[in-house]
Amino acid sequence: MRVAILAHEKFPDRAKTALGVLRYADYDAAAVLDRESAGDRVSDYVPDVQDAPIVEGMADLEADDLDALLIGIAPIGGDFDESWREDVRTALEYGCDVISGLHYFLEDDEEFAALAAENDCDLWDVRKPSDDLTVADGVAGDVDAEVILTVGTDCSVGKMTVSMELARDAREAGYDAAVIPTGQTGIMIEGWGNPIDRVVSDFTAGAVEEMIVEKGDEYDYLFVEGQGSIVHPAYSAVTCGILHGAMPDKLVLCHVAGREAIHGYESFPLPPIESYVDLYEDLSAPVSEAPVVAGAINTAHLEDEGARQAVDEYADDLGAPATDVIRYDTDDLLEALLE
Amino acid sequence: MRVAILAHEKFPDRAKTALGVLRYADYDAAAVLDRESAGDRVSDYVPDVQDAPIVEGMADLEADDLDALLIGIAPIGGDFDESWREDVRTALEYGCDVISGLHYFLEDDEEFAALAAENDCDLWDVRKPSDDLTVADGVAGDVDAEVILTVGTDCSVGKMTVSMELARDAREAGYDAAVIPTGQTGIMIEGWGNPIDRVVSDFTAGAVEEMIVEKGDEYDYLFVEGQGSIVHPAYSAVTCGILHGAMPDKLVLCHVAGREAIHGYESFPLPPIESYVDLYEDLSAPVSEAPVVAGAINTAHLEDEGARQAVDEYADDLGAPATDVIRYDTDDLLEALLE
Repeated sequence: MRVAILAHEKFPDRAKTALGVLRYADYDAAAVLDRESAGDRVSDYVPDVQDAPIVEGMADLEADDLDALLIGIAPIGGDFDESWREDVRTALEYGCDVISGLHYFLEDDEEFAALAAENDCDLWDVRKPSDDLTVADGVAGDVDAEVILTVGTDCSVGKMTVSMELARDAREAGYDAAVIPTGQTGIMIEGWGNPIDRVVSDFTAGAVEEMIVEKGDEYDYLFVEGQGSIVHPAYSAVTCGILHGAMPDKLVLCHVAGREAIHGYESFPLPPIESYVDLYEDLSAPVSEAPVVAGAINTAHLEDEGARQAVDEYADDLGAPATDVIRYDTDDLLEALLE
Repeated sequence: MRVAILAHEKFPDRAKTALGVLRYADYDAAAVLDRESAGDRVSDYVPDVQDAPIVEGMADLEADDLDALLIGIAPIGGDFDESWREDVRTALEYGCDVISGLHYFLEDDEEFAALAAENDCDLWDVRKPSDDLTVADGVAGDVDAEVILTVGTDCSVGKMTVSMELARDAREAGYDAAVIPTGQTGIMIEGWGNPIDRVVSDFTAGAVEEMIVEKGDEYDYLFVEGQGSIVHPAYSAVTCGILHGAMPDKLVLCHVAGREAIHGYESFPLPPIESYVDLYEDLSAPVSEAPVVAGAINTAHLEDEGARQAVDEYADDLGAPATDVIRYDTDDLLEALLE
């Protein structure tokens, strides 16, 4: 599928979804839309992802050359920015589907709904949970696959990236592995999934369980994308629901080097790494025994020497192999996970 | 407010909401509707709650004598039972409001919506979360009130009842105490509240925080009604969101004597009581230090001697005072909680 990726005024640093899609999705990127850096290329900014031209808007692209427009950025609050309307309108007139992870649902927008019907296009609001979700039965542990869950010390520590990298490297090493996506970027990359943070709280575990049951007998290893942190003042409910709904066999603890307080909640210091290990293991155990067998740490902001040191210290704290999955290889982690 | 309580074919044993309202709410009960035991009285079945006649249906009551009809039962799935339609219709024709905790929202029922508009009545679907909920700010700990949260070893162990009994006994002892309701029965009793299990999972903590912030400077003590259990395979997300959203100062651990496995999930044995204490305290601590200072155990199914023994053993396991709040007094608990 050939897609254009909307990232106006935010590519690449504030376009996490666009970058995730360029890095991991099977989509063929026709272009990135960013009116501020039109004329440049993705590779001018980010070397290690799929390259594509950056253009001003949909009008610069050919209808024949495109299958979908994907909204690759999310403003705070998840609203639709009216400056994007012309691009979405053009996409629908071209006969393209539109994929969005905004809280604002495109299918509830009268103009877009009418245009989509007229041109026989799909509006895929990935953040809209499916209607048939329900409570968990406690059966995710019964699937054939080994279930590996990424958990975190905080939000935005790289759980999605770690899940994607580990699954890809496992596949390249010959293992039969898939990702279970739980957030908007993961869902766009994989092309399916339940947006767990938007599910009714009673169905949080059930929405994860449903996905594990669906895929669990097709693969040998499932890498479940975790969310939030078990000690997050706002989002721990999502984290806890995923932990118990997934009934994992093993956990990978994700962290950002040097982070000392909950992001955006600076009056809450992060507990020591060791206590995260105990908390996740103790909380999981009554539902599913799941040791923390590996760690992943984001060192993007550090120089080489600092990064190496941060990884080593993190491995010591965990008592388990650790790496930065973007900076280094994942061999030690895969050995611990796929034994 | 004078209410009729619908409990057809289920009063009293399968009418938990009706009983909770009769026991704790300020409503004046005009009648219970149960076509199977019409002609009897509430006191023929339950001695220690507000008494009322049991009648066959709304047609047996006078319009002038009533302010509201309250649906006091919930079938599995929370659907509306069509055999109740005539009673709801009559209530609205009488000019009564209708209060319902069903998953089926009465305000989405065309006939009821039209009748309510015509007769200037309110349809209050207590299970419908308000539209303006959002993520927690991590500020519930800033309120003046001491926040006491009931937590449980499982679902249906009496957290709502314990919250109501403790708050009532505290008020009778001269303390300025209120309940923060989080479930349908609690919300009907108190006349306000957020149905936490129906909130979007990202907003679970935020929906609790909003209530604490609203009431936290008006009272000296808030008793927050907990939900589920932190090791429940399906509902732990709700429990965890309440724990971190409420930012409690103290916890009361609730249990049912003799229960050995998660209700309805019998392949999951309950962990030892001591490990619940550690789990709740360790999970709460990074957001809010909250020791388990008291226990409540439901012994309704035991004879006197067994009940006394169960309470004593439970207190030993907890290392804290414990009681059955319905069977015995709550003096020791209040002493531990309101010091």
